[in-house]
Amino acid sequence: MWVLILLTGLFPSLSIAADDIIWREVEPENVVFIDLFEGEIAVELNPLFAPETVEQFRRLVAERFYDGLSFYRVIDGFVAQGGDGSDLGELSLVPLIDAEFELDLSGDIEFTRVQKNDLFAPETGFVDGFAAARDISKNKVWLTHCPGVMAMARNDDPDSSRTDFYIVIGQAPRYLDRNMNVFGRVIHGMEVVQKIQRGPANENGIIQDEAASSRIRGMRLASEIPEKERLTALVMETNTKGFEKLLKNRRDRKQKFFHNKPPKVLDVCQVPMAGRIIK
Amino acid sequence: MWVLILLTGLFPSLSIAADDIIWREVEPENVVFIDLFEGEIAVELNPLFAPETVEQFRRLVAERFYDGLSFYRVIDGFVAQGGDGSDLGELSLVPLIDAEFELDLSGDIEFTRVQKNDLFAPETGFVDGFAAARDISKNKVWLTHCPGVMAMARNDDPDSSRTDFYIVIGQAPRYLDRNMNVFGRVIHGMEVVQKIQRGPANENGIIQDEAASSRIRGMRLASEIPEKERLTALVMETNTKGFEKLLKNRRDRKQKFFHNKPPKVLDVCQVPMAGRIIK
Repeated sequence: MWVLILLTGLFPSLSIAADDIIWREVEPENVVFIDLFEGEIAVELNPLFAPETVEQFRRLVAERFYDGLSFYRVIDGFVAQGGDGSDLGELSLVPLIDAEFELDLSGDIEFTRVQKNDLFAPETGFVDGFAAARDISKNKVWLTHCPGVMAMARNDDPDSSRTDFYIVIGQAPRYLDRNMNVFGRVIHGMEVVQKIQRGPANENGIIQDEAASSRIRGMRLASEIPEKERLTALVMETNTKGFEKLLKNRRDRKQKFFHNKPPKVLDVCQVPMAGRIIK
Repeated sequence: MWVLILLTGLFPSLSIAADDIIWREVEPENVVFIDLFEGEIAVELNPLFAPETVEQFRRLVAERFYDGLSFYRVIDGFVAQGGDGSDLGELSLVPLIDAEFELDLSGDIEFTRVQKNDLFAPETGFVDGFAAARDISKNKVWLTHCPGVMAMARNDDPDSSRTDFYIVIGQAPRYLDRNMNVFGRVIHGMEVVQKIQRGPANENGIIQDEAASSRIRGMRLASEIPEKERLTALVMETNTKGFEKLLKNRRDRKQKFFHNKPPKVLDVCQVPMAGRIIK
């Protein structure tokens, strides 16, 4: 069992003093609880990077649009996609959402760098807890497709997101970066997401028999729940000295376990970022 | 649902002519079926990269060592570790295994390149279907820690692997490359692996209550099963023109879906490599 001794580096509480990490309370209007038969998930929404998407998603959640719908297209190692399957759009009355693929860089956006010359971007890092990348030469910053990321499905038209969303469940499909409305991330219950029923790989993950798919029992914004009953979501602040120390410990592994010292690099999607849900 | 139209690139059968892919039958002595209550997994062993590990593992399987044991340390997004927890070694009679972290390059090893200047290695690619990396300047080649990889746990001593193994279940922990005895990969049932019961993150994934852990009902080498009852495992040949075409289609995404064309790079761990199990 001892391989995992070295892996304490994964857990900030074990690798650095707990004091070094500052936890931020997520505003209740940015927390969504998704209740599945498999368990409960908490998602943090990101209105900074995807304001229109978040607004529409909040409205759909409040209208109970997703309750009873299922994850109808689920490809192991890739994404779990849920909704009503109406994204082609002819039958849906829900309006389309414009592309929200990236932002212009501005002084307001605090970017904690993880890696220069990442395979997919000139720089990766974190913005307010979300894995991100930026290209200073193009003045752009965007959220990266890491496991747990939530984004809107669309068709070929960049402005054709509507209701259906996917959660990344496998190795980061970074080639989707800057092409999708990424609007949230799972901060609790990723092991529940991993239990979502997969579809057949040779049918592109489509689950024909709806009864065999994982259902959404309900979705609720934390802000809809009376304050006394509401759970609080805490996430790591990434723009702090403590978080930079955590990144440094992962980048430069000094444990004698490492017979071959790994290169001093970090994959932004391999930094564990789970949040905490408390009463 | 239409985001996934573009994703046909994931499935060779949809993106290139099926004729282009050559399927290789895995030798029965290199196939292990792992039966869990969650479902069945098939693993391909790799005696080229880890001969001593594979030999010991085969022997342990044949002795039914693993039957009834559990995944006692499971960290979502990282690894599921199973065995008897005896790797510290004082009590185990099973011999230790030497380090089998990497091989010298030789003309016999056919390496199909995926990416130059990968974040973690000068080159990544595939060797006989296994994701790998090499460093020509150091004359070394090794198997990379992609999702589904199976490797032996150990303590600080590089020669201290014994019985307990882990399966990578999250974003590739590539910093472990060249430090572990990687000896197999899941070729079927990765969605079953994802259902393995997780342990608490703040206890480094250790599941104290064994009854709450996922159990190994049994492990069998295909070669132990009478030929008439035996299932056949097929995996993609990676040293072929068809596979190179598949890689090229993933690296250079020409679909009009991509409003922002992704960089022409490939993460070796994001190339889907599932096998097929047939009668």
